[in-house]
Amino acid sequence: MANFMSICTMRNLLVLSLALNLSLIMRVFYEGEKHGPRGFSAQKADRALEKAAHATQRTLVSLSSSGQDDGEKLINLDHGDPTMYESYWQQMGEKTTVVIPGWQSMSYFSDVKNPCWFLEPEFAKQVVRLHNLVGNAVTEGRQIVVGTGSSQLFLAALYALAPKDASEPISVISAAPFYSSYPSMTDYLKSGLYKWAGDARSFDKEGPYIELVTSPNNPDGFVRHSMVNRTGGILVHDLAYYWPQYTPISSAADHDLTLFTVSKATGHAGTRIGWALVKDPEVAKKMIKFIELSTIGVSRDSQLRAARILEVIINSSQNPGGPESGESFFKISYHFMAERWQLLREAVNKGRFFSLPDFQQGFCQFLNQLSHGSNVKTKAWKIAKAYSEVIRF
Amino acid sequence: MANFMSICTMRNLLVLSLALNLSLIMRVFYEGEKHGPRGFSAQKADRALEKAAHATQRTLVSLSSSGQDDGEKLINLDHGDPTMYESYWQQMGEKTTVVIPGWQSMSYFSDVKNPCWFLEPEFAKQVVRLHNLVGNAVTEGRQIVVGTGSSQLFLAALYALAPKDASEPISVISAAPFYSSYPSMTDYLKSGLYKWAGDARSFDKEGPYIELVTSPNNPDGFVRHSMVNRTGGILVHDLAYYWPQYTPISSAADHDLTLFTVSKATGHAGTRIGWALVKDPEVAKKMIKFIELSTIGVSRDSQLRAARILEVIINSSQNPGGPESGESFFKISYHFMAERWQLLREAVNKGRFFSLPDFQQGFCQFLNQLSHGSNVKTKAWKIAKAYSEVIRF
Repeated sequence: MANFMSICTMRNLLVLSLALNLSLIMRVFYEGEKHGPRGFSAQKADRALEKAAHATQRTLVSLSSSGQDDGEKLINLDHGDPTMYESYWQQMGEKTTVVIPGWQSMSYFSDVKNPCWFLEPEFAKQVVRLHNLVGNAVTEGRQIVVGTGSSQLFLAALYALAPKDASEPISVISAAPFYSSYPSMTDYLKSGLYKWAGDARSFDKEGPYIELVTSPNNPDGFVRHSMVNRTGGILVHDLAYYWPQYTPISSAADHDLTLFTVSKATGHAGTRIGWALVKDPEVAKKMIKFIELSTIGVSRDSQLRAARILEVIINSSQNPGGPESGESFFKISYHFMAERWQLLREAVNKGRFFSLPDFQQGFCQFLNQLSHGSNVKTKAWKIAKAYSEVIRF
Repeated sequence: MANFMSICTMRNLLVLSLALNLSLIMRVFYEGEKHGPRGFSAQKADRALEKAAHATQRTLVSLSSSGQDDGEKLINLDHGDPTMYESYWQQMGEKTTVVIPGWQSMSYFSDVKNPCWFLEPEFAKQVVRLHNLVGNAVTEGRQIVVGTGSSQLFLAALYALAPKDASEPISVISAAPFYSSYPSMTDYLKSGLYKWAGDARSFDKEGPYIELVTSPNNPDGFVRHSMVNRTGGILVHDLAYYWPQYTPISSAADHDLTLFTVSKATGHAGTRIGWALVKDPEVAKKMIKFIELSTIGVSRDSQLRAARILEVIINSSQNPGGPESGESFFKISYHFMAERWQLLREAVNKGRFFSLPDFQQGFCQFLNQLSHGSNVKTKAWKIAKAYSEVIRF
């Protein structure tokens, strides 16, 4: 009991210290460079923390306008949301707009000749063009499978790769630290096909397994490779962040099953569009079956919108600064992320309890320059998330 | 063996006869009233059947334009697709169009104040208006949960209603004939939470169960009520076809958990938007959690489009024939379905192997008239589907 109390006291102290750090970071983020970080007190930080706990789990809450909070600003750190890209898309104007008349795309079917019958041909075309341009993934000899975000494709992959008549569910693993939703997404339906088996580093069970390789990794931003290399291992590569604004593009990924999502590539999280590049047609067929059974296809409206967005990005990269094409999306985003990361780094350096990893620079084939070898955006928001989790214990 | 052979011969004969019927129906559907049904031969019908078997599983295939098929027309009967509504939406013109600029709806979140944080407020508003206008469902005291089609909501309901710590999965049942995808949708992930247990009429297992009540029923079009009334029973009402064009609206449905879908209500299958009306906030919360875990929300673009479509339907019903509102969607659709149903009935009556059920007329509160008490469209396509299944054995 005494031990428990001493832990509690230590934790209370830690909460207080974290609150101070948090408050400082909030101020840096919100007051901006113009005013610089202002003074703060432990009481203020405590109040900020209390308010944050009561705020909705999902939003970026700014209380300063209410005039009741001594000018404090609160960030809810539970979730990321790529709204920072909005300003770019606003600047790009009408060329990004989609117009959908009431009689279009009424059918369930987008392309009856494609095994993935719910894949919009225009979206598929732009996905191939974008990968060819950026050089981040091989599309040749791959079936594109579109999904309602990459979450659905992750589940579709588990379904497709798990043996259907095994005596026990196949183990699903990933090297820690891993995307915090992997365990619950894998286990929420208590499937008899697959089961979360934790950290790939300590995985020693015999038999087949599925290893999730997220690179750059969520949450820590490091480039990742498979950790377990055993017979019967099947790899799923989640390359959601393998874009020039987050990490240097070193080569075209050439894996069996690779996941991407519009949310992270362009910031359009609300469209819920992801795609998988799948080498084995039989695996692709099973993923397609999964999407048939779970949602009978994928929003055609969102696919059409995503196609337009990708096309605009391609044009902006091919003819940057042109009157029709606008500023290069990847270049602008890269600089924007670097700036944010620097702000975070400055803020964290002023505290005592946290440090940020240093990433080596790498040569980006796409940007044709040495670029920060860091998953800038991810880390900015994921480290913030880590703060939040520590605070909540 | 002899017995097997005689069954085979009987089956071959049946195939031939069915082919004749099928060919006739195709002709009636495709040649239309203008030319009337033309003569046909068993050989032609056989060829038509063979071609149908080779045609894609998912499309309505017309071969007449190729000039290589003696003017035959083929229908693939595996799947329905509500493209027949296209002509109405074309006539409605620009008022049905949605315009989505590139910077809109980028965030994951549609409404952070709503427990269903991915529900577009405008879509929710039009859903309530439409139900109030049509009088087919009580919306008061219900949480609206939007889904990627009603399929996702069906799965979300199973997840929400199944006990999480039971010793065995809860039984999921429905009275035969039931929607043909129910068993595979329930069992494809071998969930430990729920399990398909077949026909509700013969269900005699003790303990809790989930009964799916589809009304009007898919595939037979009859109005349905719960078949099993035992302690521990939980009902899910799938009212996808409870709209004036399919069945008389007798009263506002007032159930615990009711599913609807835009696909059947308006014909916009490609938008993949459905909604649930849920009485118990805790059940709604679990359904929302399911959608978070499976797709992190629902396409905002499609919700915005669906909201516009529903708004146009409401206007067309409130001010039918007005210069701004256009012809009443439900009235036009009702007559269109009745006409199709009559064509099918005439065709089937000319054959010998099939009959169609007669439905009593009922008073439709919405159309304010006696209307055909039949789920006209559903049956037209589902009976065709039954043909297909018999032919395939």
